[in-house]
Parts: sequence; C-alpha cells; structure tokens
Amino acid sequence: MPVGLSEPEALLPIAGVRWGIAAAGIKYADRNDLALMEIAPGAATAAVYTRNAFCAAPVTLARQHGEAAATRYLLINSGNANAGTGEPGMMAALDSCAALADVVGCKTEEVLPFSTGVIGELMSVEKIRNALPQAYADLSAGNWLKAARAIMTTDILAKGVSRQIEIGGKTATISGIAKGSGMIRPDMATMLAYVATDADVEPALLQRLLQQAVDYSFNSITVDGDTSTNDACVLVASGQAGIAFASEADAGYGEFAAAVIEVLQFLAQAIIRDGEGATKFITIDVSGGSSKAECRQVAYTVAHSPLVKTALFASDPNWGRILAAVGRAGVEGLGVDKVSIHLGDVRIVCDGGRDASYTEAAGQAVMDEEEITIRIDLGRGSARAQIWTTDLSYDYVKINAEYRS
Amino acid sequence: MPVGLSEPEALLPIAGVRWGIAAAGIKYADRNDLALMEIAPGAATAAVYTRNAFCAAPVTLARQHGEAAATRYLLINSGNANAGTGEPGMMAALDSCAALADVVGCKTEEVLPFSTGVIGELMSVEKIRNALPQAYADLSAGNWLKAARAIMTTDILAKGVSRQIEIGGKTATISGIAKGSGMIRPDMATMLAYVATDADVEPALLQRLLQQAVDYSFNSITVDGDTSTNDACVLVASGQAGIAFASEADAGYGEFAAAVIEVLQFLAQAIIRDGEGATKFITIDVSGGSSKAECRQVAYTVAHSPLVKTALFASDPNWGRILAAVGRAGVEGLGVDKVSIHLGDVRIVCDGGRDASYTEAAGQAVMDEEEITIRIDLGRGSARAQIWTTDLSYDYVKINAEYRS
Repeated sequence: MPVGLSEPEALLPIAGVRWGIAAAGIKYADRNDLALMEIAPGAATAAVYTRNAFCAAPVTLARQHGEAAATRYLLINSGNANAGTGEPGMMAALDSCAALADVVGCKTEEVLPFSTGVIGELMSVEKIRNALPQAYADLSAGNWLKAARAIMTTDILAKGVSRQIEIGGKTATISGIAKGSGMIRPDMATMLAYVATDADVEPALLQRLLQQAVDYSFNSITVDGDTSTNDACVLVASGQAGIAFASEADAGYGEFAAAVIEVLQFLAQAIIRDGEGATKFITIDVSGGSSKAECRQVAYTVAHSPLVKTALFASDPNWGRILAAVGRAGVEGLGVDKVSIHLGDVRIVCDGGRDASYTEAAGQAVMDEEEITIRIDLGRGSARAQIWTTDLSYDYVKINAEYRS
Repeated sequence: MPVGLSEPEALLPIAGVRWGIAAAGIKYADRNDLALMEIAPGAATAAVYTRNAFCAAPVTLARQHGEAAATRYLLINSGNANAGTGEPGMMAALDSCAALADVVGCKTEEVLPFSTGVIGELMSVEKIRNALPQAYADLSAGNWLKAARAIMTTDILAKGVSRQIEIGGKTATISGIAKGSGMIRPDMATMLAYVATDADVEPALLQRLLQQAVDYSFNSITVDGDTSTNDACVLVASGQAGIAFASEADAGYGEFAAAVIEVLQFLAQAIIRDGEGATKFITIDVSGGSSKAECRQVAYTVAHSPLVKTALFASDPNWGRILAAVGRAGVEGLGVDKVSIHLGDVRIVCDGGRDASYTEAAGQAVMDEEEITIRIDLGRGSARAQIWTTDLSYDYVKINAEYRS
C-alpha cells in the first residue's frame, strides 16, 4: 500500500480550465480512461517531455503541436502508451487530435495528445473517437479529481494537490494531478502530470519556471531507473486571477514560483509513495559534493541498487550495501576516508568504516520506520542534491511480472 | 535453481599449485570457509581487483603485497568480506597474512589475502589463525573442487572448470574456480576467481592476458549492477609443463590465450547461471554500434532494467520494455528508425516500431526457453559487445531481504 499517501480530498478549480472525462474502453473495462483538458483562449502552456530516444508518438506530436499553435486542449488516454508503434502510431495520435478538433471546433495543432499504458500495441483511434462526445459533454471546472483517476494505470491512489497564495491582495490558485508508479526515473518529467494556475505568466517565463520546478521534483525521483517513453508534464497559466508575471524580478514571483515547485514536489513524491510495491518512502540526501551532478550520480546509484532496495524492504540496516553503492558510483578521486553516511540521525560510517559509536539497535530503529532518510556527505565540496525513491519488494516483482497477464 | 549448470565433476590438478582447506567458523557452522593456495617458487602471478572506491581491506593489501614480492600463498575466507572496516580491517587482513607466514615460513608480503561475505563487520583474526594449521596440513594438488566449495557464500553450486591444450607435443593444463551470485557487476573482475596453469608465462604477458580474458568474461556479466567491494581474479602460471610464452608472437600462444579466455568465460557465465534467484540465463548481444563502449552501455542498460528483468522472469515477451531501455541508454544521436531488436531468431522491432510480421506467439516461444538471447542492432556502426545476465525473481528479493537474518 502507498506510504504516507491518501486520496486527495478536494482539488480547487482553476478559472479558465475545465476537465471532461469518459470511458473509452481502451484497455480497462468499467472505468474512465480518457481525460480532456479544455484551456481558455489567452492562456499560456508550457511542457516538458521524456528524453527517451524511443519517445512515444504522442510525445513527438505534442512537441510539434505545442510549437505550431497556442494549446486549447489536452487529450489524454490511459491503457495504451502508443509507444514503439512506428508510423501507424503517429497516424493514430494525429487522427485522435483531428477527431477531437472536429468535435470541439478547433485546429488539430491546438490539441496536445498524451498516452500512458502498455508499450508496443497499436492504439484504437475508433474507441477514442467514440468516447469524445461523452468527454466533451462532461467538461467542468470541478473535474480535477475525476481526471486524476482517469489517467491512472498501475497507480493505487489518485494523485493531486492544490495550493493558494495571496499576492497584492489577490489570490492565485494552483492545482495539479499526476499519474505514475512504475517505469519511473523521469529524465525530463514524470509519467504524466498536469498543473494549472489562474495567474498570468509570460510564456517564456512559464517554461523556465516549469523546467526549474521539474528539476526539483519529477527529475529527482526514481522507482526503478526506467525512464519512460511517454513522460510529460504540462503547466498551464490561464491568466484569469488578475495576477501577472512577466519576469523573475516581478513582485510576488518568488512566492508564486515556490508554490508551483511545492505542487510539483508533492506530486512527484506522491508517485514515489505509490511506487510499485513500495513499502518505504526513501529520501537520499547527498551533500559535500564538488558538483550537483556528482551528488545526483551518487544518489541515483544508491537509489537504483537492488541490494540497497531489498535491504530497505527487509528493514535491514545493512549499510555496507549503501557504502558499496557509493564506492561504485564513479566519482573520480573520491576520498573514502572523508565520506560519512547517516541513516536518519544515526551516523553509521565515518573515516571509511563503521562509526565506532554505531550500534545495530540504533540503525534498526531507523530502518523500522516507513519513511527513511539516507544522508551521504562526500566531504569534498559544498554541492548538494536530494532525490526520493522506494524499496524493492516482492510486490514490485509480482506487479511487473504479471502486468500484461 | 541454477540455469544449465551442474557441479563440476572433476578439476585437473596443476603442477606447482596445491590447495588446503579448513573450517574456521567465521560465519557458517559445519562447513569449510578457509582456502589456502600454495604456489611453488618461480611461478608468475597476475591479479585484477575491483574498481569500487570503497574496496575492502584485503583488496588494498593484496595489491600492495603483489607489488612488493612474488606471491607464494593466497589466503581466502568466506563469510566476512572485511570491507567497510577502516583501519581495524586493515590490521585484521595484515595479521591474517602474518599468521599464515608464521605457519608456512614465508614473508608476510608473499601472502595475498581475499575475503568475501558480509560487509562492515570486523573479521576475527583469531578464528583464521586457529584454522591455519588444519588448512596447511590439508595442502594437496587434488583439492580444487574442495576449494571451490569453501569460497562459496550465497552460491548454490560450486563453480570450476579445466581445459587442456596440446602445444608442440606438450600439454598445458588450466584449472579455475570462482564464487559469486549477488552484488555482481564486476568492474574489473568478479567476486573471487582463481585460475592456474602449468605453462610458463612471462609476468607482464600474464597480466595482459588476464586483463584481456577478464574483459571478455567477468567484465561482461551482471546480476544486479552492484559492483562489489571485494572482486578479485588471480591467474597463476606455475611454469611446470615445459611450455613457455614470453610474448604474444610465440608459437601456440594464441591457442593458449583462447583456452584461458574460455576458462574465465565459463566461470563468469557459471556465476550468472547461479545468480541469486535466477530462473533464466540471458545473453544480450548489441551490434551495429559506433564503439564497443556504446554497445556495452546499451547492453548494461537493458540488463539492469528491473522492468526487463521481471518480464524475463514472467516469460513475458514485453519487448516494449527492451525498446524503452535502449531508448534511455544515453546513446547520443541514436536513430531509432535504424534500430532492430531480435528475441532469439524472432525479429520484434524494426524501423522504430513492431516488425509487421511479429506475432506474440513467436515471441512467447522464445521467452519460454531457459536460455534467451536478446539481439539489438543499433544500425550506426560495426562495433559489438556481448554480456550475460539473469532475470529478477521473487527469490532474488527473498535472498537479499533475508541475507543477514
């Protein structure tokens, strides 16, 4: 079961944004699997996508459409990723956008398509086309949670959060949803995340803000190291709150940006808390590096080590595995006698070996918790990075061995 | 159970090399855990060690001793890795060598120490010292298989092989043993491997041969991506067969080198066949790369993907996961429409998508096998690399979640 996560109670509507949901029967029976976001004219939309070379057809098309026109609709389906599908997959993505454009009366390039689910199977445009009228009729500002549920695949819980911030006597609202549980090591954005605000943000600034927020959220999590073919994160600024930002220097922008980052971080951590088979929520905090990149490299090496992950699952303070992972992370000229490692507040390693004061009982007490922080100080600089990950359980194997059956 | 591997039936003695075995009670009760290799004067010894920055105390000491003197004894224990043990660990390794030097009457630096087992716990020199007389009294040319069993940790089967080759009417014999099952992604050599021949090989040539053989064997396997702190591989040439090699150009050297590589490859593959929880033996063959390094990078990315590994465990031809792993392997400028992927002889991907002639039944037939080859052609050059790995099963998690309990 998810670690320290529950269903969102309520998500705040964003003026200028409506969601319409439908059941298209793409893979799952008896559940919604199609979500349509309508964006009012005049809004700005920023997006980041997976860096996987085999990016899915909808990712390629969404990139093209985003550059060609202002975005009016996001069309999202779960159950089929439309990835590894070659030219027929591109046609399916394009035909889906065209079908929606017909229904709503916009241009095809004003639609961004998104897909998540099984890779390598052709997606039925027919099923999507048939469900579009239902989704269109359903458009409502209050459908955020319903949308969060429609885009789930192996997720156990829907993921969403809202924040409000007062700026100059006015209120800006930010709401976001995300899905993702496995094949999670976003290298640009996580599986799928949609965030909107009613603030007015100049498009280039919005893109910079999204990139920054993604770096501190979706690009700092990993379940299994598998960067997906379909990762995407979209940030919409509808501009209907009467608050406008044209540059980083504008009054209130710092607070606003912090709130956006907070929303993305919440969603990214929610994906980890609901990671496939997760029984632990792990923070890996690497400091004392000569660069942030080096800190991230160490953090990811520890986070991806199956031996560290299985020890975390077993609540076993087998810190030697952490030490071995740090040692193989490829940090040039690492002085092992400068490295220290803490489990929670318990120092386990210093001077290249076990801390003399360390006791197994102290390590065990930390490992018994559901939420664990591993702190690693490389002792060679002032850079720092933090990432979040899960343990590796029987259920991870079960979920992924049985996914298609 | 190990995949396509059985206990070695007999291992051929090597003139000039004897093994002595004892039960020191380091961690395991009622089994041998100490192995002593005696090397006759005049032999050449080459060794390669882990590149893990946190290398174990015995690795540091073995490197120093190997440079300081001709090696006369290898002292190997299982049950405790003497890694992450700082200065006390160095003292323990040194004291063990000194204790053996006392018993056999050699210099301390003529002894190379090796340890494998739990990381981060201090090793008892007392237990080793007490068992040395028993090991010394046991020295015999016929003890290769007994040694293979004594160095095991989570291995299910002992691993060893012998080869003979005729050169100029004389016979050179090569015997080797290895241990290893988890924390396997050697970045120099695997956990522990000991190979000896009765040929006479000039020391610098012997070291080059070992490096070459390791590249094609222990540096081409992975179970879990975790490079150990204790990896070591030793190659001894006793020179007692009347066959001598001073350079690569010598008559018969090519055949001899091929036989040595074959022995190391057998041992490396045996480690994979006995990989923790392994139910499949997987060959990943990447061709068409612009460099060997790039081919290895792709092969290891596929081999380390938990999603690919769980699909292999489930015998699920979920090739989309292979494609996603290739796509995120970080190959600069990869043309995805040039990539093809075969499962065994079945082509599943070409032109960036599923081969039109591919059927799930054909993929399933390959996946149902115990031994599976995944062939990936990057379509951008003529370099090639091959590595071997396992699937990821419930038992892998079980073994590693319960290792210390």
